[in-house]
Amino acid sequence: MIKVGILGGTGYTGVELLRLLVAHPRARLEVITSRAEAGRAVSEIFPSLRRHLDLSFVEPDHANLQSCDVVFCAAPNGVAMGYALTLLKAGVKLIDLAADFRLKDPALWQRWYGIPHECPEVLAEAVYGLPELNREHIRQARLVANPGCYPTAVQLGFAPLLERDLVHLDHLVADAKSGVSGAGRGAKVANLFAEVADTLKAYAVPGHRHSPEICQGLEAICGRPVGLTFVPHLTPMIRGIHATLYARLTRSAADVDLQALYESRYAGEAFVDVLPAGSHPETRSVRGDNTCRLAVHRPNGGDVVVVLSVIDNLVKGAAGQAMQNMNILFGLEETLGLDSPAVLP
Amino acid sequence: MIKVGILGGTGYTGVELLRLLVAHPRARLEVITSRAEAGRAVSEIFPSLRRHLDLSFVEPDHANLQSCDVVFCAAPNGVAMGYALTLLKAGVKLIDLAADFRLKDPALWQRWYGIPHECPEVLAEAVYGLPELNREHIRQARLVANPGCYPTAVQLGFAPLLERDLVHLDHLVADAKSGVSGAGRGAKVANLFAEVADTLKAYAVPGHRHSPEICQGLEAICGRPVGLTFVPHLTPMIRGIHATLYARLTRSAADVDLQALYESRYAGEAFVDVLPAGSHPETRSVRGDNTCRLAVHRPNGGDVVVVLSVIDNLVKGAAGQAMQNMNILFGLEETLGLDSPAVLP
Amino acid sequence: MIKVGILGGTGYTGVELLRLLVAHPRARLEVITSRAEAGRAVSEIFPSLRRHLDLSFVEPDHANLQSCDVVFCAAPNGVAMGYALTLLKAGVKLIDLAADFRLKDPALWQRWYGIPHECPEVLAEAVYGLPELNREHIRQARLVANPGCYPTAVQLGFAPLLERDLVHLDHLVADAKSGVSGAGRGAKVANLFAEVADTLKAYAVPGHRHSPEICQGLEAICGRPVGLTFVPHLTPMIRGIHATLYARLTRSAADVDLQALYESRYAGEAFVDVLPAGSHPETRSVRGDNTCRLAVHRPNGGDVVVVLSVIDNLVKGAAGQAMQNMNILFGLEETLGLDSPAVLP
Amino acid sequence: MIKVGILGGTGYTGVELLRLLVAHPRARLEVITSRAEAGRAVSEIFPSLRRHLDLSFVEPDHANLQSCDVVFCAAPNGVAMGYALTLLKAGVKLIDLAADFRLKDPALWQRWYGIPHECPEVLAEAVYGLPELNREHIRQARLVANPGCYPTAVQLGFAPLLERDLVHLDHLVADAKSGVSGAGRGAKVANLFAEVADTLKAYAVPGHRHSPEICQGLEAICGRPVGLTFVPHLTPMIRGIHATLYARLTRSAADVDLQALYESRYAGEAFVDVLPAGSHPETRSVRGDNTCRLAVHRPNGGDVVVVLSVIDNLVKGAAGQAMQNMNILFGLEETLGLDSPAVLP
Repeated sequence: MIKVGILGGTGYTGVELLRLLVAHPRARLEVITSRAEAGRAVSEIFPSLRRHLDLSFVEPDHANLQSCDVVFCAAPNGVAMGYALTLLKAGVKLIDLAADFRLKDPALWQRWYGIPHECPEVLAEAVYGLPELNREHIRQARLVANPGCYPTAVQLGFAPLLERDLVHLDHLVADAKSGVSGAGRGAKVANLFAEVADTLKAYAVPGHRHSPEICQGLEAICGRPVGLTFVPHLTPMIRGIHATLYARLTRSAADVDLQALYESRYAGEAFVDVLPAGSHPETRSVRGDNTCRLAVHRPNGGDVVVVLSVIDNLVKGAAGQAMQNMNILFGLEETLGLDSPAVLP
Repeated sequence: MIKVGILGGTGYTGVELLRLLVAHPRARLEVITSRAEAGRAVSEIFPSLRRHLDLSFVEPDHANLQSCDVVFCAAPNGVAMGYALTLLKAGVKLIDLAADFRLKDPALWQRWYGIPHECPEVLAEAVYGLPELNREHIRQARLVANPGCYPTAVQLGFAPLLERDLVHLDHLVADAKSGVSGAGRGAKVANLFAEVADTLKAYAVPGHRHSPEICQGLEAICGRPVGLTFVPHLTPMIRGIHATLYARLTRSAADVDLQALYESRYAGEAFVDVLPAGSHPETRSVRGDNTCRLAVHRPNGGDVVVVLSVIDNLVKGAAGQAMQNMNILFGLEETLGLDSPAVLP
Repeated sequence: MIKVGILGGTGYTGVELLRLLVAHPRARLEVITSRAEAGRAVSEIFPSLRRHLDLSFVEPDHANLQSCDVVFCAAPNGVAMGYALTLLKAGVKLIDLAADFRLKDPALWQRWYGIPHECPEVLAEAVYGLPELNREHIRQARLVANPGCYPTAVQLGFAPLLERDLVHLDHLVADAKSGVSGAGRGAKVANLFAEVADTLKAYAVPGHRHSPEICQGLEAICGRPVGLTFVPHLTPMIRGIHATLYARLTRSAADVDLQALYESRYAGEAFVDVLPAGSHPETRSVRGDNTCRLAVHRPNGGDVVVVLSVIDNLVKGAAGQAMQNMNILFGLEETLGLDSPAVLP
Repeated sequence: MIKVGILGGTGYTGVELLRLLVAHPRARLEVITSRAEAGRAVSEIFPSLRRHLDLSFVEPDHANLQSCDVVFCAAPNGVAMGYALTLLKAGVKLIDLAADFRLKDPALWQRWYGIPHECPEVLAEAVYGLPELNREHIRQARLVANPGCYPTAVQLGFAPLLERDLVHLDHLVADAKSGVSGAGRGAKVANLFAEVADTLKAYAVPGHRHSPEICQGLEAICGRPVGLTFVPHLTPMIRGIHATLYARLTRSAADVDLQALYESRYAGEAFVDVLPAGSHPETRSVRGDNTCRLAVHRPNGGDVVVVLSVIDNLVKGAAGQAMQNMNILFGLEETLGLDSPAVLP
């Protein structure tokens, strides 16, 4: 059994990780930390885990994380940086679900996250954990930067186009819609039920932290700068991201069979499902599931490609992808513990 | 492997049964019927099942149900009656998720369901499939009448009080709140999103079909007539039932430790979870899960008992309980295929 | 024009009061206070009021409340107590939407609200502002205690039965369901969208602050102690309260025509609407509207009465009723500014 | 008083029209038709209108529409065509809330709506009822084609850019999100609560009927063909449209102050509200209100303009705009009956 630790497990990413871990046949949760809830049983905070998990939160300072095989960091941005070096030295693998190791450039990190990066030397060896684009590097990694939710949906949607150089790179549009769990479990007026139910709004149009992460990923694919307009929206659902992607085909790409391209690109991928031509994926079709479901359209046969990409922000967008990365790190079947269908309706 | 058939699998009960069956280690779905969707792939109607199930709906008349070990009927009321005799004769076990075999009295059935009962002789041998009250009979059964959703929540909540004769039987109140999936997947204006979102109403106050079913069950427990007022409410959530039960303690029951009573009554039950004193269960804590979660209160130490009982109407209230019954019928571990935690948030 | 002030206008009760005030033909908002938002335009916090209201929040200490004709206190419990004496002395009428003046007994107040009452002498003259039960006293009042949301729905539902002494008083049940705005606009994890959407729970079963208020009101009607079990539930809607009331008819009441009783009791009331026999009111039918809509049932002609009572918790349960009280205080038509139909769907 | 008739008033557009009409000081509803509900009181179908409206539905064949001053057609597409000629001849003005008179080209109409246009000669005189773009023509009209919901939000958002020729016309993107009431009150599985709650999907990506309507409108503004990609999404809210618009500035437009442009363009408009720079409008800020609220962004000061445009699909997107048009037709203040603030939360 893989011995697992979790740093900061009281958020939505944390409880989702717990749900997946208790069902994983080869992993066992040994320790979970929380400053605020230290001493309380996990199942007291999350009664859905009663009878599944008999463990209490411990103060991070007293947690024996170094005896774990792998530690997931589900704490806020800036926490994993403080633990990375120690854990790696102790031979513990680290999968950070926050943003600390996603941007390769520490200066860029500081600009978007507002604090200096604590361990740029560790950052250098971190591997971006999007298996469908980066599987071989993950296999060798000690430290995995689990991608953001929006970046996962957007990169998987754009990748086949950019890998084949089919679209103009200077005017990509990603219009993304997220459920409210993506905003976290912090006590904020803006995320109260009575504030966000039965309404919809865009946010962070002038600039969102996932924008540089997406650009870094897309540029890694095509080797050139991309011009991306990214607009996230807050929508009245608990989970789910729907990214609607717009790009313009280059003249030489006019005859490419996009449906065939997407199907063949993801043919071997367990967690990317390309729908038949003409389809419209629903976010609920992946609720609780690690799948990214895609559809590709070319309205009126024109030069605009529209890609529809849905994920569960807490699964493929966070905890599920982290577990997929754990499976890769430990040489397990990639789908282990991740093969239950979505809960629908 | 247990060979499974499903009669009428396009409703919410059907798709939930499919979700559970594809993850069951000892059962394999062989055939699924639908008149309306015959010929179409199941995963076309329910994309959440893509890659999990490679089967198409067939016309019920052409379905080879008799080669199955067990058939679940997830069709509307009145369908199972027409198949029961043939299936039982062929040695196939039948679990009816509709109401055809729930009421033991065919005249009562006709009064509430509006049509005569087709096979009263089969009705006589049907076993009411609420395992926590009726496990030994289920074990021997050929035909299981899977309980209604409200009746499951209400009976499990009242049972400990009635088994011990602690409350006045003439004035029980069950105020129940259900998610909209309980109303089925039929095309009705009354269940449109824009009709039931952000609003709440009681319905069927003059009389609901689950009322006689609940009374029959409660009377079987205590051996005497009960006076029940049952008021169901439609609430803006997809899944979930919350039953709030009110009863008045008899004088001799004044000193009973209700918390201890509930805990001991359900101590051995895998799917009934009694919360600590003072708790308030949420329906989401059982979303997608076969658990009934209970709390028992006695406000101000008075003579009124308030029991809070939550289930997922599609799981413990339908498909999950049906699978629990299948496990019992075939001598399997009762929790097989039913041990994933709820999806929360 | 009536000169109006609002103490503490950043909560849901406050913004609803603003919505109603800007449309009131005889009232003009002069001053609105908020410590947290002092200096900011009201329409910056609530963009729905852009072009309707050109006013900024001021520090309560600098607010010229004494020049108003009437002040609404929409601040948390415990605030109005500190202003009452000064305002009354200055000849300003006060309508408190919080709980400071609802319970006539200061000791009881302290027990439920945790702090001593600051001005019991003022409390003595406060009038409970439920016009349908108390109109004449309100007309003469200087200080109106605007009722709680649950108490409004429950008292209007039970009143006709208790006024005529038709039911056993020792075992009344009020099972109430509320939208989340009733929990206020404070930043609390428990009220986040991802915590309360698609789920339902009871709360405060051991005891809720509205319980003594309801009992006080019911006892004022019938002149005797009542035994009430009150269970509130949090439901995934923004606004709305649905109270389901259960009582047992006394033997001598067996032949009373309840439908006629309710219709005649409320025949002259502009804001209480008794539905035809057999109806089930929906909370959305009063969304944004000051109406309390009632239906009365007697299932199977038995001795149990079930009353269904719906209000909008922010209107008839708070701001609308406060404005109705203002209209009464100033001798205006009671429906002035309150005659728009509900917003449906 | 203006005598008003409504053709087909049982849908969401119809009930919203009723809500607005009963509050209109200068209009009185005389007749309302419905084949399905003929003979039933309007307030029986819509209890929110009890005490506000004392009228029953009549068979359209027996309705005395010709004695009205104006008839609103809130029936499905294809109905108004059959009444237009008769009504106009009788001197009755007609405002069609369906699509019959929106597209000027009858062949285009037939292509998108599947039936031939019945009265192309009347179509020729119909005026497209978007007052902010077309007020003077509306003033003279006998027949107003009330715009679609998406077209209203999109055209008002793009208009200032196109009027000044600031953007490349060949690659406009309109990513629109709608509440479910936009899909109508018909009994369809696809719009059931349990199908569309807590999920999100795009639809009609290959082509939506509002696409040609939008293009016709935009082309009328700039006098040249536009290349528009329009992707509508179904989102779990009752009302509201959020259109997110993307366009690319031409080189010569690089220095234009977009905020000032939008503010000055709409300075005189009562129903278009341009938010301060950096804002993100919410759909709830216009719930029940006839306002279109806009924000304009230029992320990173680049060449992409992002316009956020929100309306209530049933008000500015349907019934409210229809009433605004009625006010214009009859020379009334344009805001008459339309000046209540949005209901928030």
